This record gives sequence, structure tokens and C-alpha cells, in this order.
Amino acid sequence: MAEKSIANAINQNRLWERHMELAKIGATIKGGVNREAFTNEEIKARKLLAKWTQSRGFSCSVDPIGNLFFRREGKNPDASPVVTGSHIDSQPTGGKFDGAYGVLAGLEVLESAEDIGLETDRPIEFVAWTNEEGGRFQPATMGSGVYVGAMDFTKMLEVKDTNGIKVSDVLPETLNAIPEAKKRDFGSPMSAYIEAHIEQGPILEKQDKTIGVVTGIQGCRWFAIDVFGSEAHAGSTPFALRKDAFRAAHSMINNMYEIFKDDEDILRFTVGRFEVSPNSPNTIPGKIFFTVDFRHPDSSVLTKLGDQIEEICQKNCNGLDFEVKETYTVPPTIFDPTVVGTIRSSANGQNFSVMDITSGALHDAKYMNDICPSGMIFIPCEGGLSHNELEAAQSSDIAAGARVLAETMISLANK
Amino acid sequence: MAEKSIANAINQNRLWERHMELAKIGATIKGGVNREAFTNEEIKARKLLAKWTQSRGFSCSVDPIGNLFFRREGKNPDASPVVTGSHIDSQPTGGKFDGAYGVLAGLEVLESAEDIGLETDRPIEFVAWTNEEGGRFQPATMGSGVYVGAMDFTKMLEVKDTNGIKVSDVLPETLNAIPEAKKRDFGSPMSAYIEAHIEQGPILEKQDKTIGVVTGIQGCRWFAIDVFGSEAHAGSTPFALRKDAFRAAHSMINNMYEIFKDDEDILRFTVGRFEVSPNSPNTIPGKIFFTVDFRHPDSSVLTKLGDQIEEICQKNCNGLDFEVKETYTVPPTIFDPTVVGTIRSSANGQNFSVMDITSGALHDAKYMNDICPSGMIFIPCEGGLSHNELEAAQSSDIAAGARVLAETMISLANK
Repeated sequence: MAEKSIANAINQNRLWERHMELAKIGATIKGGVNREAFTNEEIKARKLLAKWTQSRGFSCSVDPIGNLFFRREGKNPDASPVVTGSHIDSQPTGGKFDGAYGVLAGLEVLESAEDIGLETDRPIEFVAWTNEEGGRFQPATMGSGVYVGAMDFTKMLEVKDTNGIKVSDVLPETLNAIPEAKKRDFGSPMSAYIEAHIEQGPILEKQDKTIGVVTGIQGCRWFAIDVFGSEAHAGSTPFALRKDAFRAAHSMINNMYEIFKDDEDILRFTVGRFEVSPNSPNTIPGKIFFTVDFRHPDSSVLTKLGDQIEEICQKNCNGLDFEVKETYTVPPTIFDPTVVGTIRSSANGQNFSVMDITSGALHDAKYMNDICPSGMIFIPCEGGLSHNELEAAQSSDIAAGARVLAETMISLANK
Repeated sequence: MAEKSIANAINQNRLWERHMELAKIGATIKGGVNREAFTNEEIKARKLLAKWTQSRGFSCSVDPIGNLFFRREGKNPDASPVVTGSHIDSQPTGGKFDGAYGVLAGLEVLESAEDIGLETDRPIEFVAWTNEEGGRFQPATMGSGVYVGAMDFTKMLEVKDTNGIKVSDVLPETLNAIPEAKKRDFGSPMSAYIEAHIEQGPILEKQDKTIGVVTGIQGCRWFAIDVFGSEAHAGSTPFALRKDAFRAAHSMINNMYEIFKDDEDILRFTVGRFEVSPNSPNTIPGKIFFTVDFRHPDSSVLTKLGDQIEEICQKNCNGLDFEVKETYTVPPTIFDPTVVGTIRSSANGQNFSVMDITSGALHDAKYMNDICPSGMIFIPCEGGLSHNELEAAQSSDIAAGARVLAETMISLANK
């Protein structure tokens, strides 16, 4: 029995070595990776995946935006596949594990199944989604967004980088990276999608857990707030005659801190950008711009609290003009209970330390959940650090996540 | 009697026209003035002053840093003069009245005395101090600072602008602007110094007063505060695990607002510069830099409250590292009671609406007070606006201030 277990077949060393080899492509001096979407580096990474899979007999297909699929057939070739994956593009100063882990864990599951000759009813696949990071061409999660129809393909082709170069200019080279790849349509059916990823946050590490069973992705509301005061001399203007935009913005944020709090520490509230004009020590600020990033997994909380921003600003504006704009809104994602349950039992069945967790960051799995039952597996990352060249993950955690992924995929592929 | 009154001799139209003519030199499209120290424009303005004074027989002298004096002799040529003045250099986007008023009011006093043939015991003089604004070459109030010995002349000659050009490179042309000017030593004695100036603040206008009797100049303490947190993802990092530099800085400032308050509204406290790193909406700020500008006319208040800054930061740092630096310290100036009293009785004697006021901004009179009894006269400026091309003052207020200045100077010159 033990010999035939897919979980036991996961090869920790091979999986680690694959990470190290992939990380050579676009390697930075500080130990990170610069492998943005549509670059020669990302194309080289695609070729490396193709090389690894060809020797195992997995087939390859690519859709019109470059999402790259590798497939191990099941007993029933007409059944829709169980799919895993993530992305191999990186931030310009990214790490070795963000995205790469989900892709290489997928490869490891297919290889391990091959190693032990395990047959599944459904085909199993892993995918590298195009342009998940969105550093050069926005929006992020472009490949999965287009795949499920949430983003418009022809509009995405027109997206320009800061030099005016379009996605349509750089896409052909990516599409031709693997000449033997078959063409695949957007939205071709999947029976389930599971994505493994480093947490990109500190919770698993702080709680000493190896596996995070991701129950959903927080919803998010972004606000941009302008406060309009009047510049005046810091020495000669008494408080009573000031129109101090800094002080008004300070009061607004103070009131927000009072209202956007949460004893359970699930709610996220961040003022990340704050700009002062003219930003001179002896001039009372005439204008402030600041942003609010508010997240919660419960859409009713997002509505109830987020809708108070305008009123809080009104109450604290001290007579100054202000403008509140909601610049970005993403409803929460709740992952499929069957997929989540299968991940949880797989992790518990292997006696890993496990906890349920909500994803604070966006992932391709968000869009896949629109077209098929989906879920995610998190593993710890050192110090919660990600989008950083120092990003690090433990080889043992990487293997543990892959073992949970493998059992989950095989279980769903045999249902 | 009335015919011989120096106050009545002040010619409102002439004084206003002089302002308009001087403002043509360096005039900006928006109605302001760009006439920085050591430029061709400032030299042209010097020549214009010389032209106006030569026809009245006033003598001219210049000291080694270019401070420019015009003198009407008294009955006792060996007595030290009563001096008034200010500056004719401007901010790069300055107004028509900041500085220019004090110089032209001085000229008007000398001319009016000449017009009515008024003899004084002491000589009376007006001065245009070099580089009061300090826009291109810091520090500000360079001419008066060197004159009284508070700044070192040879060090000032080495001061460079952003292009590496030194004061010593540009000074000779300014010194040669008026070839007939006699040489004058730094620190040559004065019996009193009175400076007329627009308020550069909103108080006189708000209180409907024409004349501000300036009792002193606020002292000032500047602090620069760095707060060191840790960048982290706004979505995936719970409050308990954040090292949010923004939130710590916010708490510090909140506590400062509680402590730096004043029901009498004399204290000035301003956060004018506030910088966030990396300043991205979805990244918890890793570093904050902000400044505190704290002013008060009472040095014991400056000490007592200013010394609490470090402790307030400590109490509110939430475990983060921080650094407080005091970057600038100016003790308060208390003007001479006799000069202040003479200004006050002169203003009351002419039935102007009068109030005592403290200067929030620095002036050349601060340094003159080190070497002789000094005082200042403020007149309202529209909306408190200064260092701005839209700076404005009323012709009637300009004349009123000159009338008070004239009576004060004559009274002190006959003592």
C-alpha cells in the first residue's frame, strides 16, 4: 500500500532541485528572480518545463494568450481534467517560489503518478498561467482572467507598457516558445482546479502550521482620498485660521482606525500611500492624497464598513473640501466546499499540522473558481516575505504541500 | 504744526508708485516678482534706489557683503544713526511687498523729512539687506547675519548654489552696482533699528487692525523624525504581525496634537513634510519620515514642550525603531521695550487701529536686535498670503505703516 501512495511518491529532492534550476533563469544577484511575463527569460522557463515533461510523455497545449498546459492522460480521455498550476512569471525583483512553486508542484504530481504507474479516471494537468504578476502589463492575473472570460482578450492585446509596447507585440514569441504545443481554446472545461502557493504572509509560520487550507480569497475595496486645504506659513498662521489638509486627513484616518478594527484580526485595513503638497517643513499642507486598502472575506462586512468611508471623511474634514473615489473593488471568493474538504482531509490524513486560512493576495484560482470547483493549498514562507528577492520557503514544506496536492488531485480525478 | 508733521508729510501716492515701479524689475506674468539676490534684476533694483536718492542728496554706502545704506544727515554727524530697512531680493515666485515695503517706507521717511525740511539730531538711514530670502544661497538673512557678526563672512563667501556657483563668484557685481557708494564696515553702530513689513500672516486682517506693533519674533524648533517599520503585504498580514511605520507615525503625531495645543492660539505646531516608503496602496509602509515645526515666543515653552518630542515618539512607536533629530533651533527674539513703546504710541497717537503681535517669520530685525534697540511694524497682507505671486497689500495700509515708522524714527532720532 505505502509504495503505491501518491503522497509517498513525491520526491522532495527532485522538487527542490527543479526550483533551483528554474530560479537560474532570470536569477538576480540578491538571490531572487527577474522573470517578467513575455520576456526571453519567461520563454526560456517555458522551454525548460517542456523539456522536463517531454521525457515523461506528457502532452502540451497553449491557448491564444499563452496559458501553457501539460497533461497526463486518464483512463477516460473524454473526461474533463483535474488541473493544478500557478505561474512562472515573476515580479521584477521577485523570489524563487511565488508562482513557481504551484507549477513545479503540479509537475511533481504528474511525474510521481508516472513514477508509480498510477492510473486515474480523469486526465490530470498542470498549467502555467500567463502574466499573473502584471508588473509590466496590467492587469495582473491576465491569463486566467481571459481564460474564464472575466477579461476581454482583444482588449488585453491592446494593453501597453510604459514604453508604448503592446501585449500583441510581444505575445507571438511567447506563443511560439514550444512549437510542438497543440492549440487550446479559452475556457475548455475542467472538473476541478487546485493551486499550491506560498502564503505570502506570516500566519502559518507564526502558528507553526505546515499546511494552510485556503477557504477563500478576501474581497477588497480600494479608496483614493483627496483633501483640499490651503497652503500657509507655519510660523504666522494661528490654528484658528488654518486650513490644514494634513490635520484633516489625520483626523479622517484616526476615525478610520477606530472603526476598521477587528478583535479576531481577520479584517485588513491599510493606509499605504500618503502624499503631501507642497511637503515643506514650514508650510501648512495645502493638499493631501491618501489611499485606503480594505479587505475582508465577508462581503457584508466589506459593504457595511467600506460604505462608511465617505461619512467618516465628512465628519473629520474640518470644513475642508475632499473627494473620495473607490478605485478598485473585488468581491470575496469562497472556494468550493468539496475541493476545500478534500484538501483538508488529505492534509489531516497525512498528519501535517493544518489550519484553515483566507488568502489576502489575489491568485489565478480566484478566476478558475468561476468555471469549476476550485481550492488552494498554502505553505509557509519565511517571515511572510514575498515579492522580494529574499523570499524563502523550506524544502520540507514544499514537499508537504505537494503531497497534499497530489492526494487531493488523485482523489478528485478518480471521483 | 500740522504742516510740519512728518506723519502728514508721508506721500501715499508716491509711496505706492515706488512699489509699482520697483515691482517692474523681475515682474512675473502672474503679477509677482522674481528678483533673487545677486541677480541682474536685484542689481537693477539697487540702481533704481540710487537714482531716487541721488536727486534728494542722500549719501550711499555699501559694506563688504553688499548691504546697501542711504543716509540723510542729522544735526550731529557723529551721532549713530536711527536706521530702518528690509530687503529688495525676493523669492523666485515672490510678491511685490515682502521686503520691498520696508525699504521703500524707509525711503519715503527720508524724502518726507526732506520735503518739509525737518532737521533731526541723529542721522536717519534706510538699508536694503543682502540675500534675506536665501532661496539660491542659504542661509536666509545672510546680509544682516554677517553685519552683526552672527554669521561668518568668509564662510558665507564659500556658500554654493545647486550649480556649484559661490557667493564670492557673484558678489563683486552686486558690490559694484553703485560706483559712487562709500565703503562701510560691518557692525558700524546704530542707535536704533525699526523694520516695517507686511505681516505675512492673516491676523491683522482678521482682527481688522491696520498696525501690528511687533513685540518679538517667535523662537522655533524643527524636528525630523524617521520611523522604521517593515514592508509587508496589505492583504496577507494581520494587524498583530504588522510593523506598520505609518500607523506608528500616526500615533506619534496624534499624541503631539494632544500636547501641542494652546487655547490662546499663540503656539504654532505644524507637520509639513511627511513621506512614506514605498508609498504603494497595498504595501504596509516600511518607513516614514516627517517633520515638526514648533514655534512659540516664550523660550520656556519651547524648551518644555519641544523636549517632550522624543518621549512622545517612544510612547507611541509600538515597538518600532525611530530616530528624532533636532534640525534647526532659533531662540525667541524680544524687541526693545523703548522702541516697541515708541512704535505703539506713534500708532495710537495717529488713531490707527493697533494691536501687539508676534512675528511668526524670521526678519533681518532679529539680528539687528543683537547690536541695537530694535522693533518692527506690521501692516496687513491680503488673506495672509506671502511668498506668493498673488501677495497683496492696501495702499492705505502701506501709507499708515510709513506714517508710524516716520514718527517713530524722528522721535528716536531726536532723543
